[in-house]
Amino acid sequence: MVRLLSREDVASLLTMPDALQHVEEAFKQLVLGTARVPQRIVMSDPAPGTTLVMPGIIGGGMDALATKIVSVYKDNPAKHNKPTILAKIMVQDMETGEIVGIMDGGLITAMRTGAATGVSVKYLARKDSRAMGIFGAGVQAGKQVHAVYWALDRKLERCKVHDIKRAAAEAFKAELEKELGISIGIAGTGDEILNGTDIIVTASTSTTPLFDGNKVAEGTHVSSIGAHAPAHHEIDTALIARAAIVAADYQPACLAEAGEYIKAVKENVIRPESIVSIGDIIAGHRPGRTDDRQITLFKSVGISAQDVAVAKLVYDRAVQNGVGKVVDF
Amino acid sequence: MVRLLSREDVASLLTMPDALQHVEEAFKQLVLGTARVPQRIVMSDPAPGTTLVMPGIIGGGMDALATKIVSVYKDNPAKHNKPTILAKIMVQDMETGEIVGIMDGGLITAMRTGAATGVSVKYLARKDSRAMGIFGAGVQAGKQVHAVYWALDRKLERCKVHDIKRAAAEAFKAELEKELGISIGIAGTGDEILNGTDIIVTASTSTTPLFDGNKVAEGTHVSSIGAHAPAHHEIDTALIARAAIVAADYQPACLAEAGEYIKAVKENVIRPESIVSIGDIIAGHRPGRTDDRQITLFKSVGISAQDVAVAKLVYDRAVQNGVGKVVDF
Repeated sequence: MVRLLSREDVASLLTMPDALQHVEEAFKQLVLGTARVPQRIVMSDPAPGTTLVMPGIIGGGMDALATKIVSVYKDNPAKHNKPTILAKIMVQDMETGEIVGIMDGGLITAMRTGAATGVSVKYLARKDSRAMGIFGAGVQAGKQVHAVYWALDRKLERCKVHDIKRAAAEAFKAELEKELGISIGIAGTGDEILNGTDIIVTASTSTTPLFDGNKVAEGTHVSSIGAHAPAHHEIDTALIARAAIVAADYQPACLAEAGEYIKAVKENVIRPESIVSIGDIIAGHRPGRTDDRQITLFKSVGISAQDVAVAKLVYDRAVQNGVGKVVDF
Repeated sequence: MVRLLSREDVASLLTMPDALQHVEEAFKQLVLGTARVPQRIVMSDPAPGTTLVMPGIIGGGMDALATKIVSVYKDNPAKHNKPTILAKIMVQDMETGEIVGIMDGGLITAMRTGAATGVSVKYLARKDSRAMGIFGAGVQAGKQVHAVYWALDRKLERCKVHDIKRAAAEAFKAELEKELGISIGIAGTGDEILNGTDIIVTASTSTTPLFDGNKVAEGTHVSSIGAHAPAHHEIDTALIARAAIVAADYQPACLAEAGEYIKAVKENVIRPESIVSIGDIIAGHRPGRTDDRQITLFKSVGISAQDVAVAKLVYDRAVQNGVGKVVDF
């Protein structure tokens, strides 16, 4: 018997505080050695898009085993009237190996990606942060703001957004103001984002840095969650050089996939061992922010442990609440 | 919309001649460079069993993109009254990336594993082969005999089986005699399998060789499909040394996972480049059997291209015939 959960089912079962809690736990278990995140498999040629296959396993009482299959097809909206990103997550019973749940992975991807930023805010941003700015108003952007809002105990007051597509920024403003009741400003230029901002989030697929790292104010926390390929760069080497803490969702994953960190290591701006997995900060192995003037940086390429932890929570809740379609096949 | 196919649905849509044809094509496309088989991901600790995640993509007109998730939990039958091996295959639309079909992967695994042996028989066994012997009467064994039967144009006349569990051999005999109408003998010892046998199949999880390779008669074809881990060995180095052709489902996969080939290369019994991917024989890049006295050897660790090719065929047939449950989630 397999429980099938739609995006609406997932939405009815998952809150951002849940996602924050479970993603934090996943990051921690990873550095404690009770979770495994194999390097994900990427397939494209000869397909017109890319598929990522991301399995992961988490022990330590969470006992979660799942695989996300996520595809990124840029021509989908125009050619097929389908979303660019499509995802499903297969949840296995860790005790028997049986696939017991299959759920839409789109919302979970956005929630867990937001939660990664949220966890970084909890450990790296200034406690008195009230203003954020975000580059990119795409599918991941909204949940980034939700996550920061909850990570700051709902004390986030305002947000500025910049997107090369003005209409996307307008839609984002309308949606987020309605959902969170905070003020959203539209920034005409990237530099406007930097002014008076405590937390900057980059959620783009840019191959060149979005802003000059030398212009970032002291005390700022930056979370870069968009670019996740060696050829992508949302932030520049200057910012990495200035950051007191250079953190990663998972250091080995970022050394393999994060263009910014790969470049900075190659140029001897940072040593690989100075890039810290956020789990090591959560577990107390390494310090978080120690000074209000520090610039802190968090990079997330996205790791399966985030999906696995959140999907397991959603599955367990679905069973408890009888949500979804149960099918024998 | 996702089409869900049960084991029974798959059984109603797939024949062994289909599997032989599509697995042969998959092996060929792999060496032609139109298919990709990433090294599969294996996860176990901290779970009590092992999960293999096997994505693959095949172009060249087949246009198949799929991932198999297969788990091997030895304690399942005793502890949970569930099969040791459980599998599901997720089929994507290569044009959009969308998962459009999810099917039980148990029967497909057995069929495609059988088909690998069948393809090796077509290219490497003597044309006048009439007798086979098989080590192991487990879940993979039956489809091995079906595949040899069809690969020999239904001219297979008899089969001997050896299993350390006599009851398993008895059940196998009853099942195969009924299904194929050929004579099945039960061999009390492994040596009995070797006598008067044209084709030997090993379908075990043995960590030590099942028989003395020096006792194998000239002209024999051996297909080893059971052991698929570096620490496993179904056949010995003597047989590898004697074989005129040492073939693999896919040479890079066997060099990574086939204990027998890893050991033989390490001991300089064979050079890696002398191990030939069966696709190169199918494509005519390398010769098949040229002499009735040659011993030929085929090793299959199982590669995703086999699953992907067969799953795509099953999915397409299901759509054509309206088989399965179509669910929106």
